Amino acid sequence: MNGDAACDPFWMANNVVNLAEKLSLFSEHWSPKVVARLNDYEIKVVKVKGEFVWHTHEDTDELFIVIAGELTIQLRDEDVHLAPSQLFVVPKGVEHCPITDGEVHALLIEPAGVVNTGDAGGDMTASYDDSFA
Amino acid sequence: MNGDAACDPFWMANNVVNLAEKLSLFSEHWSPKVVARLNDYEIKVVKVKGEFVWHTHEDTDELFIVIAGELTIQLRDEDVHLAPSQLFVVPKGVEHCPITDGEVHALLIEPAGVVNTGDAGGDMTASYDDSFA
Repeated sequence: MNGDAACDPFWMANNVVNLAEKLSLFSEHWSPKVVARLNDYEIKVVKVKGEFVWHTHEDTDELFIVIAGELTIQLRDEDVHLAPSQLFVVPKGVEHCPITDGEVHALLIEPAGVVNTGDAGGDMTASYDDSFA
Repeated sequence: MNGDAACDPFWMANNVVNLAEKLSLFSEHWSPKVVARLNDYEIKVVKVKGEFVWHTHEDTDELFIVIAGELTIQLRDEDVHLAPSQLFVVPKGVEHCPITDGEVHALLIEPAGVVNTGDAGGDMTASYDDSFA
């Protein structure tokens, strides 16, 4: 958190995060936007559509919470289906590949510095964007 | 996470968390229920109503996401008002006291072991409950 938080009486209320408002500010897919921080973790909103890339985060679990739409997280042995207000934690070291039919809005929570494509890299690797935080 | 997760083909889909379903399983207020784990953090659902106690978490930030109802987080200098789909991080070391008019359903995310009443203790200190995880 901002080290000055406790000193600034106007800091707090200004840092309420309206998820719908944040999601209205961008349209690109597979490009998570940091909207808040929790210790050394980041809370991100993301819009996704279509199929991502198979990848693994070797060092961390990854939390998905679906806000709108239907998200499938493909694992090598099964598919996990998530509707709005459902959440799932992909355990560290488990290869996964999100896929959707239509557009999905979701919240991601993971340690700061996690790259969206994990070990896979490639064209779908998103630039770090905390301009909405 | 469960260390056997990657070995059990049925483990994953069984661990989708439906927040509405979890919230339907209990009625008590101010008693967070762990529903999932993210590394050494816990994701909890909670129902709250009325006023809590003023307290501080000296060692950690605390994330609130409102699912239903209107939550006010009183701080010493101001009140923070949260509607559904809004989130707020109480920075570590900042004294706070949640208060509501009606019942509020919320998600809390914080490191494992955080006690709901922080440094304050007292009658509203909840027992640790991960029976829904």
